[in-house]
Amino acid sequence: MSDTPALVGIGNAIVDVIARAQEEFLARHRLRKGTMRLIVAAQAEALYEDMGPGIEMSGGSVANSIAGFAMLGGRAAFIGKVAEDQLGEVFGHDIRSLGVHFATPPAPPPATTARSLILVTPDAQRTMNTYLGASQMLNEHDLDEGLIARAEIVYLEGYLWDPPGAKRAFRRAIEVAKAAGTQVAFSLSDPFCVSRYRREFLELIDGGIDILFANEEEAKTLLKVDTAEEAREALKSKVPITALTRSEKGSWLIDRASGAVHEIPADPVERVEDTTGAGDLYAAGLLYGLTHGYALPQAGRIAARCAGEVVSHYGARPEADLKRLVADIARR
Amino acid sequence: MSDTPALVGIGNAIVDVIARAQEEFLARHRLRKGTMRLIVAAQAEALYEDMGPGIEMSGGSVANSIAGFAMLGGRAAFIGKVAEDQLGEVFGHDIRSLGVHFATPPAPPPATTARSLILVTPDAQRTMNTYLGASQMLNEHDLDEGLIARAEIVYLEGYLWDPPGAKRAFRRAIEVAKAAGTQVAFSLSDPFCVSRYRREFLELIDGGIDILFANEEEAKTLLKVDTAEEAREALKSKVPITALTRSEKGSWLIDRASGAVHEIPADPVERVEDTTGAGDLYAAGLLYGLTHGYALPQAGRIAARCAGEVVSHYGARPEADLKRLVADIARR
Repeated sequence: MSDTPALVGIGNAIVDVIARAQEEFLARHRLRKGTMRLIVAAQAEALYEDMGPGIEMSGGSVANSIAGFAMLGGRAAFIGKVAEDQLGEVFGHDIRSLGVHFATPPAPPPATTARSLILVTPDAQRTMNTYLGASQMLNEHDLDEGLIARAEIVYLEGYLWDPPGAKRAFRRAIEVAKAAGTQVAFSLSDPFCVSRYRREFLELIDGGIDILFANEEEAKTLLKVDTAEEAREALKSKVPITALTRSEKGSWLIDRASGAVHEIPADPVERVEDTTGAGDLYAAGLLYGLTHGYALPQAGRIAARCAGEVVSHYGARPEADLKRLVADIARR
Repeated sequence: MSDTPALVGIGNAIVDVIARAQEEFLARHRLRKGTMRLIVAAQAEALYEDMGPGIEMSGGSVANSIAGFAMLGGRAAFIGKVAEDQLGEVFGHDIRSLGVHFATPPAPPPATTARSLILVTPDAQRTMNTYLGASQMLNEHDLDEGLIARAEIVYLEGYLWDPPGAKRAFRRAIEVAKAAGTQVAFSLSDPFCVSRYRREFLELIDGGIDILFANEEEAKTLLKVDTAEEAREALKSKVPITALTRSEKGSWLIDRASGAVHEIPADPVERVEDTTGAGDLYAAGLLYGLTHGYALPQAGRIAARCAGEVVSHYGARPEADLKRLVADIARR
């Protein structure tokens, strides 16, 4: 079927509220730069009140990857929960307007769509404060199992382990995928997220993840090692393909079958404006490459180029024509 | 009173939804590039559904000017109507977080906050499609007359003539201002807006506007002349100060008392990204200069610099530190 998505993403459906902030602001609110923390409604209100003027844009880690995958020309579907409110309409519009299949029923009032208050400091680092709202109501009944079974890859984010229903959806999606021969890709999401669920993530990984995305901090936290090199060595025997991302130092693509480590340089960026979405767009590019006939190192080049695009401007969704941006990368 | 605003703005309270679009998109929807048209709810839905992914940001012409004025360090208040919804919260947050006094009571459901669907074509021109929603419910009872009476300048937009209640508020604000010795500044807003209300705008201008903002198209439409030079000559006898803005050709500041025309060059901009808000930020800079001890040509330089800032990126609200941006412009 030509309209079957190659990639199905399951993740939190979030609208980002992005504002510039000074280091003092982070200190005053005791925020750990570069990480994501979960906040409740009252914290979200208090923080928002103290923030400067913002820009609202669709976000969500896997949702950003799905958007990038679609912009590259891939067929994709997204499963995630918004509410029946204006931000929910914004999220739905933005992802559907890229041709992504998104049919998860929204949660009725008084649920509100998840939002992440993102503070971008002058060093272009982003610090995220997420109120999950309706996203917490995603559960296994929201899965379109046929879609997962027919896809080539299902992509899941570690952040889904925070809401209990979403975690059940995550586990069920893996069962469906395994039974149907759909590959399972998994992002560790955030070092604090890894700390919260370390043992379970390790079991998951040993139990059948096919493609793993981790940045240095996440990998070191998961494996309790001190250096990126130790993490790289330990990951060689874990899953078929691991992408270990290292910010401006590029990434390592670890191929378990051959034992090869492909070193992918970061794409040169004139000026890094906002790192939000870098990992998400890296995943978009790699998953696109792997499902469209590219060899692993070429898929890595697509990944690096997509990540480079998204850090060169505000917000976690690409602005440029990604198809054209990667047109010169040869398939094999 | 040190906390009395120097400038009170009255305008439509709008959230912008900004998306990139190709020329074909404008043609398909029969949109006139560079203008603003009013749309009803069903049109807004249909257009939104066909648009690509967007960015949401607070907008509104006078509201943008007030935001810029506050960012320059001026004390300002805004009067305009949002609804009790998420976009209304966004608008209120963004303007209050700049220190602007904004206390107009929001409209209850089922009213929804006004939004403008803004399409930015590759030539950086913006085409606006505005659904007025709750903004239409502004009326004379929403005016804080004491605030207007104590301000140095009240600033009004031509767009207010579209909703009947807002037009009454506009007229009442002028009465209050005139009685109290508050100066009245007025923006013609848009050439189509001028066509709709030409005769009334001419009466208004003759009846006591102190500072007039017009771009070339608006001035030519108002005065039924063919060239910017003819408009300039005709405006010399109209109001005490007229700013005639001419995009990349800069602006003319016409001083009725002396008969002088100050030619203000446009600020050099490396790359024009999106012209949305150029006129609004020009007004912000000029009004700031005039209320903070700058001579007219220096106020014009502040205006040009603020306009240059806002066209160099997406969206109609400034990103840079405007105070620092104009710090080198001498007071007298």
